Amino acid sequence: MDAKPCKLSRCVKANVVLPPDTQHHHTLFGGRLMQLIDEVAVLSATRHARKPCVTASTDSVDFLSPVRVGDSICLVAYVTWTSRTSMEVFIRSTAEDLMTGERRIAAVSFQTLVAIDDNGKPVPVPEVIPETEEEEYLFRTAPMRAISRKKHREET
Amino acid sequence: MDAKPCKLSRCVKANVVLPPDTQHHHTLFGGRLMQLIDEVAVLSATRHARKPCVTASTDSVDFLSPVRVGDSICLVAYVTWTSRTSMEVFIRSTAEDLMTGERRIAAVSFQTLVAIDDNGKPVPVPEVIPETEEEEYLFRTAPMRAISRKKHREET
Amino acid sequence: MDAKPCKLSRCVKANVVLPPDTQHHHTLFGGRLMQLIDEVAVLSATRHARKPCVTASTDSVDFLSPVRVGDSICLVAYVTWTSRTSMEVFIRSTAEDLMTGERRIAAVSFQTLVAIDDNGKPVPVPEVIPETEEEEYLFRTAPMRAISRKKHREET
Amino acid sequence: MDAKPCKLSRCVKANVVLPPDTQHHHTLFGGRLMQLIDEVAVLSATRHARKPCVTASTDSVDFLSPVRVGDSICLVAYVTWTSRTSMEVFIRSTAEDLMTGERRIAAVSFQTLVAIDDNGKPVPVPEVIPETEEEEYLFRTAPMRAISRKKHREET
Amino acid sequence: MDAKPCKLSRCVKANVVLPPDTQHHHTLFGGRLMQLIDEVAVLSATRHARKPCVTASTDSVDFLSPVRVGDSICLVAYVTWTSRTSMEVFIRSTAEDLMTGERRIAAVSFQTLVAIDDNGKPVPVPEVIPETEEEEYLFRTAPMRAISRKKHREET
Amino acid sequence: MDAKPCKLSRCVKANVVLPPDTQHHHTLFGGRLMQLIDEVAVLSATRHARKPCVTASTDSVDFLSPVRVGDSICLVAYVTWTSRTSMEVFIRSTAEDLMTGERRIAAVSFQTLVAIDDNGKPVPVPEVIPETEEEEYLFRTAPMRAISRKKHREET
Ligand SMILES: CC(C)(COP(=O)(O)OP(=O)(O)OC[C@H]1O[C@@H](n2cnc3c(N)ncnc32)[C@H](O)[C@@H]1OP(=O)(O)O)[C@@H](O)C(=O)NCCC(=O)NCCS
Ligand SMILES: CC(C)(COP(=O)(O)OP(=O)(O)OC[C@H]1O[C@@H](n2cnc3c(N)ncnc32)[C@H](O)[C@@H]1OP(=O)(O)O)[C@@H](O)C(=O)NCCC(=O)NCCS
Ligand SMILES: CC(C)(COP(=O)(O)OP(=O)(O)OC[C@H]1O[C@@H](n2cnc3c(N)ncnc32)[C@H](O)[C@@H]1OP(=O)(O)O)[C@@H](O)C(=O)NCCC(=O)NCCS
Ligand SMILES: CC(C)(COP(=O)(O)OP(=O)(O)OC[C@H]1O[C@@H](n2cnc3c(N)ncnc32)[C@H](O)[C@@H]1OP(=O)(O)O)[C@@H](O)C(=O)NCCC(=O)NCCS
Repeated sequence: MDAKPCKLSRCVKANVVLPPDTQHHHTLFGGRLMQLIDEVAVLSATRHARKPCVTASTDSVDFLSPVRVGDSICLVAYVTWTSRTSMEVFIRSTAEDLMTGERRIAAVSFQTLVAIDDNGKPVPVPEVIPETEEEEYLFRTAPMRAISRKKHREET
Repeated sequence: MDAKPCKLSRCVKANVVLPPDTQHHHTLFGGRLMQLIDEVAVLSATRHARKPCVTASTDSVDFLSPVRVGDSICLVAYVTWTSRTSMEVFIRSTAEDLMTGERRIAAVSFQTLVAIDDNGKPVPVPEVIPETEEEEYLFRTAPMRAISRKKHREET
Repeated sequence: MDAKPCKLSRCVKANVVLPPDTQHHHTLFGGRLMQLIDEVAVLSATRHARKPCVTASTDSVDFLSPVRVGDSICLVAYVTWTSRTSMEVFIRSTAEDLMTGERRIAAVSFQTLVAIDDNGKPVPVPEVIPETEEEEYLFRTAPMRAISRKKHREET
Repeated sequence: MDAKPCKLSRCVKANVVLPPDTQHHHTLFGGRLMQLIDEVAVLSATRHARKPCVTASTDSVDFLSPVRVGDSICLVAYVTWTSRTSMEVFIRSTAEDLMTGERRIAAVSFQTLVAIDDNGKPVPVPEVIPETEEEEYLFRTAPMRAISRKKHREET
Repeated sequence: MDAKPCKLSRCVKANVVLPPDTQHHHTLFGGRLMQLIDEVAVLSATRHARKPCVTASTDSVDFLSPVRVGDSICLVAYVTWTSRTSMEVFIRSTAEDLMTGERRIAAVSFQTLVAIDDNGKPVPVPEVIPETEEEEYLFRTAPMRAISRKKHREET
Repeated sequence: MDAKPCKLSRCVKANVVLPPDTQHHHTLFGGRLMQLIDEVAVLSATRHARKPCVTASTDSVDFLSPVRVGDSICLVAYVTWTSRTSMEVFIRSTAEDLMTGERRIAAVSFQTLVAIDDNGKPVPVPEVIPETEEEEYLFRTAPMRAISRKKHREET
C-alpha cells in the first residue's frame, strides 16, 4: 500500500446556513455543525483509504462564534496522520458573512476514523505524506494527540 | 436565583434509527449522533436556565459501538454543574437492539452550554443541586473538567 | 410468551420545536405531531413485542393548544393492552414553554399496532401487566375502545 | 361571505414513497402518511377560507394496506362541510404499484380545521356547496360526525 | 405495447411552501422547485412506462416569479411524446397566494426521462395518444425540441 | 464597483450520496442534483455580488451518468460573466466512486442569478475578471449564451 499525500484526501464543502439548521434565535446549532464536520471527515478518510470508514471518536470542539442564517459555512478536511487502521482527520470550519465578506473561524476539530471491511472489522490504511507547513506540523504533533486520546479513553 | 435539583433538567429522547440517519453500510453516522446529543443538551440546559442557551463546546466523544438501522438510540441528559453563565451537561446515549432487547452504551459525553440574552451576551444561571450518587460524582468532578477545558482552549 | 409490565415498553421522547416543524405562522403542524406520536408508538410496541410492528390505526386526536417554535414537546408512550397480535399504545404529548416552564397537554392519543413477521403477517404478542393506577384504568377500559374501533371499521 | 363549491378547495398531491419515508422493513410509516394527510388538509382548508388554518382534530384512521418504497401515494382532499369557524376536510389516500398500475385505498380520513386570525382566534368561514354525489353524501352526513366528535371531546 | 393517452400519466402535486424550502429572504429556492419538478416528472414517466425511469436531461427553465413562504405551489405533469426508450414530460408549476387566491405561472419546463431495466439499460416505452388541444400542440412540436436537444448535446 | 476575479466567487461543495438523495433503485435523483447545483450557484453569486441573489433561470442540463449511493458528488461553481444586474454561474458536478477513485463528469450547467435589494428589485453587480483559460473561454462565449437565453424566453 503506497503512502499518499494529504492533498489527495482534501475535501471542501461550502454551505449556506438555512432556517432548518438553526435554533429559533437564528444561529447555527452546534450539533448541526458537528454533523457537517463528520460528513466531510468521512468523505476525506474514505478518499484516503478507499474503504468504508466510520468515526471512532471526535476530539473536543470549541464553538468560537455564532453563525447566522444567511452566512456561509465552509469546511476543509484532510487526513493528517494514520496509524495501522485509523486516520486522524483535521477539519477547519470557516464562517463568512456573505454580505460583507468578513470571515472568521467557527471551529477547528480532529476526528479519528477507522477503515472497515464488510463485517465491520478494521483494515489497514495507507500512510500519508505531509507536504505543506500546516500538514507537516499536524503530522508531527499527531502521535501526541493519539496518546492523549488513548489516555482519555482508558480513564472513562 | 434559587438552585435547582439536577432532575429538573433531566431530558430523555428515544429514537428509532432510520435510513436517512445512516451511512450506506447501514450504521448510524457519528455526526448524526452528535446532532442528537446537542439537541437534547440544548433542551436540558434551557430547562435549567429558562433562557436561550448555545453550545460553547463539546468534550471529546468515543463512539463505542455501531448502531444499526432499526435499533433504537435513547439519550438521557441533565445539567451536572454550573459556573457563572455556563453549564456542564452530561449525555448518555444507549443503543438497543429492538429485536432482542440487548442494550449497550453508544457514547457518553459532556457539553458546555452558555445562557444568553437577546444580544447573545452570557447571562447568569441558577446553581444545581445534585441528589443521586451519579449526580454527586459528576458534580464533584466537574471543576477539574472545567479547568482542563480552559487549558485546552488556551493552548489552541 | 411471558406477560410484561407496561413500564418495559415505556418510551419518552423530548424535542424542541424548530422552524421546519411549523406552519408559517410559527406553530407546530398537527401532522408533524402525528408523525412524532407514531414514531414513539412504533418504538414502544416494538419494545413490547420484540418483533417489527406496523400501525394498524390511530384513534381520533384533539389538538388542544398550539405549540410554538422554541417550545419543547415531550411524548410519553406505553402499551396499555394487547389482543392476540395487536397492541393498544397510549401516547401523551406535553408542550412546555421553555422560558417559563409552564406545561400543557397538547394531545392524548391511542394507536393500535400489530406485530408482523417477515411476510407482513400478524404474529402473537405477549400480554401486558398494568401496575400504576393510570395503567390499570387504561387496561380495564381498553376492550371497550377495541370494540368501538372494530364497529367503526365495519361501518366504513 | 359567499358560499363556495367543494371543487374550489379540492387539492391533489401525488408522491413517490422514498427510503426516508419508510420503516426499515421498507413500508411507509403511518405517521408519515398522517403528515401528508395534514399537509393537504391544511392546503385545502386554506383555499376555502382564504385565512390561515390550523388542525383542531383528526378523526380515527385505519391503515388498510402497507405502502412500499417505490409505490406512489396520491392524496385528494376537499372541504365537505363547515360550521361557523371550523371546516371538515375529507382526504382519500390511494396507493399505486407503479410497475403494475394496481391501485388500492390506503386510508380515508376526516380532519377538522379552524380558520384563525393573527392572534390565533377563530374567524368565520364561507359555507360550501356540494355538487357531486360523493360531496352531497359527505355534506349530509357531516353534522352527525360533528356531533360525535363533540361528544368524544367532552368525554375525554 | 399499446399506446396510452396522455391523461394516464397526468400527475398533480400541490404543496405549501415552508421555511425549509426557502432562502433566508423567504422565497422558494430555484433548486427546490427543480427538485419538485423532477419528482413529479419521474412519477409521470413511470406511470406511462410501468418501468423504473431516470432523468436524462432537463430543458432550460425560466423562474418567472418569486414564490413566498405560505404560498402554495402546484405542479401538473404528463408525458407529451415518446421516442423509442425516452419520454418527454411537460411540467407546469403554478404558484398561488393562498390568502387572495391570485395565481401565476412560476415555471414551465420539459424533462426527458428514459425507462431502464435492472441493469440501467434503456428499454422501449409505449407511445402516447394526445387528446386535448394542449396535448396535441406539445406532441406535434416535440420532435423539433428533441432535435435541438440532440444538437445541444453534441455541441457540449 | 470594482471588477473581481472569477476565483473570488469560486465555491466547492463535496457530498456523499446518501439513501434520502436517491430513487429506490439507488441512484441520485436528477432533481436532487439540480438542488445541489442551485445551492452552490446561489452561494457563488452572493460571494461575487455581496447582495442577496435569486435564480432567474437554469440552462438545459444533461445527466451524463448515474450516481450511486456511497459515491461522492463534488460541485465547483464560479461566476463567469455579468451583465448589469445578472450573473452567469458555471457549475461542474463530478461523481467519484469512493472505493476506486474513478471520477466522471455527472453534469455541467449554467445558471443565471440576479442580485436583488430588500424589495426584490434587481441591483447592479461588479464585473468579473477571467484569469484561467477555462474562465476566459467561458467569459468570451457568455454573451452568445445570454442572447440565446433571451431568444428562448421570448419564444415561450
Ligand atoms: C459561548 C459564547 C456565548 C461565550 O461568549 P464569550 O464572549 O466568550 O463570553 P465569556 O468569555 O464571558 O464566557 C462566558 C462563559 O462561557 C464559558 N466559555 C466560553 N467559551 C467556552 C468554551 N469553548 N468551552 C467551555 N466554556 C466556554 C466561559 O468559561 C464563561 O463561563 P462562566 O461565565 O460560567 O465562567 C460565545 O463564544 C459564542 O457565542 N460562541 C458560539 C456559540 C454557538 O453559536 N454555538 C454553535 C456554533 S455552530
Ligand atoms: C382549534 C382552536 C383554534 C379552537 O379554539 P377555541 O378557543 O377552542 O375556539 P372555539 O371554542 O370558539 O371553537 C372554534 C371552532 O373550533 C371547533 N373545535 C374546537 N376544538 C375542536 C376539536 N377538537 N375538534 C373539532 N372541532 C373543534 C369548535 O367546534 C368551533 O367550531 P365552529 O366555530 O365551527 O362552531 C384551538 O383549540 C387551538 O388553537 N388548537 C391547536 C391547533 C393547533 O395548533 N394544531 C396543531 C397542534 S400540533
Ligand atoms: C395491520 C395489518 C397487518 C392487519 O392485517 P390483517 O390481514 O387485517 O390481519 P388480521 O385480520 O388477522 O388482524 C390482525 C390484528 O390486527 C387488528 N387490526 C386489523 N386492522 C385494524 C385496525 N384498522 N385497527 C385496529 N386493529 C386492527 C385485528 O383486530 C387483529 O387483532 P388481534 O390479532 O389482536 O385480535 C394490515 O391491515 C396492514 O398491513 N395494514 C397496513 C399497516 C401499515 O403499513 N401502516 C402504515 C400505513 S401508511
Ligand atoms: C439516460 C441514460 C440511461 C441513457 O443511456 P445511453 O447509454 O446514453 O442510452 P442511449 O444512447 O441508447 O439513449 C437512450 C435514449 O435516451 C436518450 N437520451 C440520452 N441522453 C439524453 C439526454 N441527455 N437528453 C435527452 N435524451 C437523452 C436517447 O436519445 C435515447 O432516446 P430514444 O431511445 O428514445 O431514441 C444514461 O445517460 C444515464 O444513465 N444517465 C444518467 C441518468 C441519471 O441517473 N439521472 C440523474 C442524474 S443525477
